[in-house]
Amino acid sequence: MNLKPLGDRVIVKQDEVEETTASGLFIASSAKEKPTTGVVLAVGEGKLAEDGSRLPMPVAVGDHVIYGKFGGAEIEVEGETVIILRADDIYAIQG
Amino acid sequence: MNLKPLGDRVIVKQDEVEETTASGLFIASSAKEKPTTGVVLAVGEGKLAEDGSRLPMPVAVGDHVIYGKFGGAEIEVEGETVIILRADDIYAIQG
Amino acid sequence: MNLKPLGDRVIVKQDEVEETTASGLFIASSAKEKPTTGVVLAVGEGKLAEDGSRLPMPVAVGDHVIYGKFGGAEIEVEGETVIILRADDIYAIQG
Amino acid sequence: MNLKPLGDRVIVKQDEVEETTASGLFIASSAKEKPTTGVVLAVGEGKLAEDGSRLPMPVAVGDHVIYGKFGGAEIEVEGETVIILRADDIYAIQG
Amino acid sequence: MNLKPLGDRVIVKQDEVEETTASGLFIASSAKEKPTTGVVLAVGEGKLAEDGSRLPMPVAVGDHVIYGKFGGAEIEVEGETVIILRADDIYAIQG
Amino acid sequence: MNLKPLGDRVIVKQDEVEETTASGLFIASSAKEKPTTGVVLAVGEGKLAEDGSRLPMPVAVGDHVIYGKFGGAEIEVEGETVIILRADDIYAIQG
Amino acid sequence: MNLKPLGDRVIVKQDEVEETTASGLFIASSAKEKPTTGVVLAVGEGKLAEDGSRLPMPVAVGDHVIYGKFGGAEIEVEGETVIILRADDIYAIQG
Repeated sequence: MNLKPLGDRVIVKQDEVEETTASGLFIASSAKEKPTTGVVLAVGEGKLAEDGSRLPMPVAVGDHVIYGKFGGAEIEVEGETVIILRADDIYAIQG
Repeated sequence: MNLKPLGDRVIVKQDEVEETTASGLFIASSAKEKPTTGVVLAVGEGKLAEDGSRLPMPVAVGDHVIYGKFGGAEIEVEGETVIILRADDIYAIQG
Repeated sequence: MNLKPLGDRVIVKQDEVEETTASGLFIASSAKEKPTTGVVLAVGEGKLAEDGSRLPMPVAVGDHVIYGKFGGAEIEVEGETVIILRADDIYAIQG
Repeated sequence: MNLKPLGDRVIVKQDEVEETTASGLFIASSAKEKPTTGVVLAVGEGKLAEDGSRLPMPVAVGDHVIYGKFGGAEIEVEGETVIILRADDIYAIQG
Repeated sequence: MNLKPLGDRVIVKQDEVEETTASGLFIASSAKEKPTTGVVLAVGEGKLAEDGSRLPMPVAVGDHVIYGKFGGAEIEVEGETVIILRADDIYAIQG
Repeated sequence: MNLKPLGDRVIVKQDEVEETTASGLFIASSAKEKPTTGVVLAVGEGKLAEDGSRLPMPVAVGDHVIYGKFGGAEIEVEGETVIILRADDIYAIQG
Repeated sequence: MNLKPLGDRVIVKQDEVEETTASGLFIASSAKEKPTTGVVLAVGEGKLAEDGSRLPMPVAVGDHVIYGKFGGAEIEVEGETVIILRADDIYAIQG
């Protein structure tokens, strides 16, 4: 994919809605903010610290992740919906 | 469980609702934000400080904890409901 | 009591409501946020600073304190109501 | 008085309401947040800095002060109403 | 005047309302927050930095200033209305 | 263009609305905050750090970017609409 | 002009409303917060850092600037309306 996320942003390909994954993960609808699952497609260079260094990113391309999509922005690239969010909106890596 | 929480996040298996635990702990319903009890299933590596180090996590797998679930996200994994929250939402360890 | 508060949290056994204490302290009901009095039962290790050290706690087990209970969470342990709050919600020590 | 305020808190004995003091100070009622006058009864040790030191307190016991009581908590001690507030809520010292 | 403002606070004697000053300054009523003009009567020692030093104050006694009175508190001293505000609420010095 | 953005601001020439770009990017309308695409026309010197240095800017003139226009301000220059926004409002670079 | 702005404040003489400038700049009315153009009349010494130094100001007297007037205060001096705003509310310099 030809999108390079900036800073601590990550691009995720969202799983089909309400899917139960192969590993049995299912997102319960009773949560305050319903989390979503997906696969990481691209990862930014990391947040820029005041001294010019970058903080390491906690996820890598290919990770299957659980995230809160409240802070993200959905876009469509070559017919696929992807979401751009900040690394801190990713709760956990599955696998 | 095959979920790795990120940063200062913790995964907790929530106790049955309104249960009085073996040690006699009961969550009173009159509190502003009703706390919940559960067992820690997984613990993140800790919050990343600006200098790249990580702050130690205050809980460990197996701890029975009291937490405020306002900031957490519930998910279902292999038929069980678990909650992903930040370490700071955990009030106390019981035991 | 078998509860270990985390960080800068404190567990307090709340005095009976509207009690005038032996030392004559009475909480007036006209205050914006009505303070409460109680005895400290357990004290956390202190807030974790960015450098990994902990800030000292201003109260000790046994202190009779005045606190604002807005930020706290009430729980019942072995039949007693206790409140878990942050050290900064404690206004003063009496005695 | 047997109350020890914590951190940057101060205990003040509030003047009678709408009093014109000997020095001619009168609190106008048109102000957005009506200030109040009183005498300082007790002073905390000062706010704890991240390095463990304490910032000096700007008032001393016996000072006659003007303060905003919005952030304070009123309590009654041995029949007198006193107010516990943070040093930063004190605007000026009179005298 | 016998009032000593604390920290970065300043005491100002407000000009008569809607006055055009000798230097031709007039406060337009269309502004979002209507600024006010007045003369500085007393100046605090400056804001206390974390290292215990004080930041210099940008105004001196006798300065004619333009300020936003939103954050200030009006009091009456010996028959005069004065306002206590923070140095940062002063926009400019005239003259 | 004769506009020099200040600090961490960037000037972007917005793509025609609802356009599918040559590379197949299409902005889905279901997103919470609909992102927009455009080309970077001018870039500020970077945000000024407390020590007087400037943090590097993540984009360069000519980059095709995806951004959230919520925080930006639209202006018209020589008949063209451009948007001035902060670098942090740019999500990703395409190409 | 006899007004000295404090800290990071700037005094700007606002252009006539809805004017198209000589260089063709026109402010579109569809923006969330309509920016305004004007000429810088006076510039403060810069924001005071915690160490007592001042951060450099990004504009100089005579600059033609685009700014958001939301945070500013309008005053009338010798028959002219001027606006006092913070340097960070200036988006760009034209010319």
